[in-house]
Amino acid sequence: MIHLITGGQRSGKSLFAEDLALSLSDRPVYLATSRIWDEAHRERIEIHKHRRGNQWTTIEEEKILSLHDFTKKVVLLDCITLWLNNFFFDNGEDDEKSLNEATQELEKLFDQNCDWIIVTNELGLGGHPDNKMAMRFNDLQGSINQYIAKRADLVTLIISGLPLEIKNTIRA
Amino acid sequence: MIHLITGGQRSGKSLFAEDLALSLSDRPVYLATSRIWDEAHRERIEIHKHRRGNQWTTIEEEKILSLHDFTKKVVLLDCITLWLNNFFFDNGEDDEKSLNEATQELEKLFDQNCDWIIVTNELGLGGHPDNKMAMRFNDLQGSINQYIAKRADLVTLIISGLPLEIKNTIRA
Amino acid sequence: MIHLITGGQRSGKSLFAEDLALSLSDRPVYLATSRIWDEAHRERIEIHKHRRGNQWTTIEEEKILSLHDFTKKVVLLDCITLWLNNFFFDNGEDDEKSLNEATQELEKLFDQNCDWIIVTNELGLGGHPDNKMAMRFNDLQGSINQYIAKRADLVTLIISGLPLEIKNTIRA
Repeated sequence: MIHLITGGQRSGKSLFAEDLALSLSDRPVYLATSRIWDEAHRERIEIHKHRRGNQWTTIEEEKILSLHDFTKKVVLLDCITLWLNNFFFDNGEDDEKSLNEATQELEKLFDQNCDWIIVTNELGLGGHPDNKMAMRFNDLQGSINQYIAKRADLVTLIISGLPLEIKNTIRA
Repeated sequence: MIHLITGGQRSGKSLFAEDLALSLSDRPVYLATSRIWDEAHRERIEIHKHRRGNQWTTIEEEKILSLHDFTKKVVLLDCITLWLNNFFFDNGEDDEKSLNEATQELEKLFDQNCDWIIVTNELGLGGHPDNKMAMRFNDLQGSINQYIAKRADLVTLIISGLPLEIKNTIRA
Repeated sequence: MIHLITGGQRSGKSLFAEDLALSLSDRPVYLATSRIWDEAHRERIEIHKHRRGNQWTTIEEEKILSLHDFTKKVVLLDCITLWLNNFFFDNGEDDEKSLNEATQELEKLFDQNCDWIIVTNELGLGGHPDNKMAMRFNDLQGSINQYIAKRADLVTLIISGLPLEIKNTIRA
């Protein structure tokens, strides 16, 4: 099962995803993908960590997520944006390479027999970015979001903390 | 009753909210929260004022909205973003203080026996902001939106002038 | 019939619109509105062109789209944003003029007896733009989106490549 949770900055995506994971398992895995790149970011991570309790097993992995065995687990991957950022920065301007590496890695993850709850950002809705790097990253993020959404059984958009169902192939 | 109307810049939020207020009362209150901070902004306010008619009672209040008695009125609060801006700028970088002051003020408003129509902006969907101040404000706005949406009976997202129902606890 | 497809950068709007056009006609018209303004933009257009096949008749027109006769055709107009840009840049800061010229042109198009599939961008959801020009363009885009959405029979928001129905006057 793949459930994609998308939405904007501080829309309540992570909280929604955590509640969902705990409703599916009393021992979920938290797969943290962030490379720590500034103080504000570290603070944000700490806030999220405090919110989660002892039930969680946390795995920190920047890029090669498939090194871990998630068989029969409920895994919250939070989030795709920070994970993609690591490919984006490591690959210079070769966005094709980032896209290929990321999709190949996702294929390996989706081959594992486990339940995925995946948090991402919906981020191309603010108008034309001021700089080319933001433009390129928005394109990369949008392509990966489309890829995951196509594979997902469930896709939920979070607006002001509330879920809006975009796709549900399970109920149908 | 609390009805939250959220959406992007020039999405038609205000017009939708005004029509809604007039459908609920022939003497609604317009609660204007804006501090006038530049010419373009003043122009925008004037356009909105012209659109509204004589049926409206307008109250201008920047921060302490609960100074007014709204009992049994239909009140359009337009908008949360401009109101939050006033706390944000007055409190320096103490966003925790802004969040506390704003939520406490909202509690007082929601304790009044009246119908609230509240306009806000959905604004974290444009990618990572270029500057830290925008990042901080988006976080503050997102937190307050989640807070109001949780308390609201109805939440509507406006897309290209059209309403999309996100929450409805009345019909259910 | 007018079907408006709105969404963010790289959300899959164009692909969705193309599939829709091909489901309605085996000889659809592709109405390209873009003025080529940089290399990245040209590349993006080429990617889109490669994706489309020989079934398409392509018409390139920057502003006066109604010069062409689309009677009984299925026409994909991709996209409103690039088309509006051309008025925006040609009219200096006279956004009222751009709005009037664009709406008048749209009226002429909608008077033609054909099926319109129109791609636009939903772009005011990223917070307050850094510069006044972006602010002005977002306002212009938002006004035109509202105008088309009001006239449209169908409005679809694309999120991560998936359609979300916002308006449907045909089914109702």
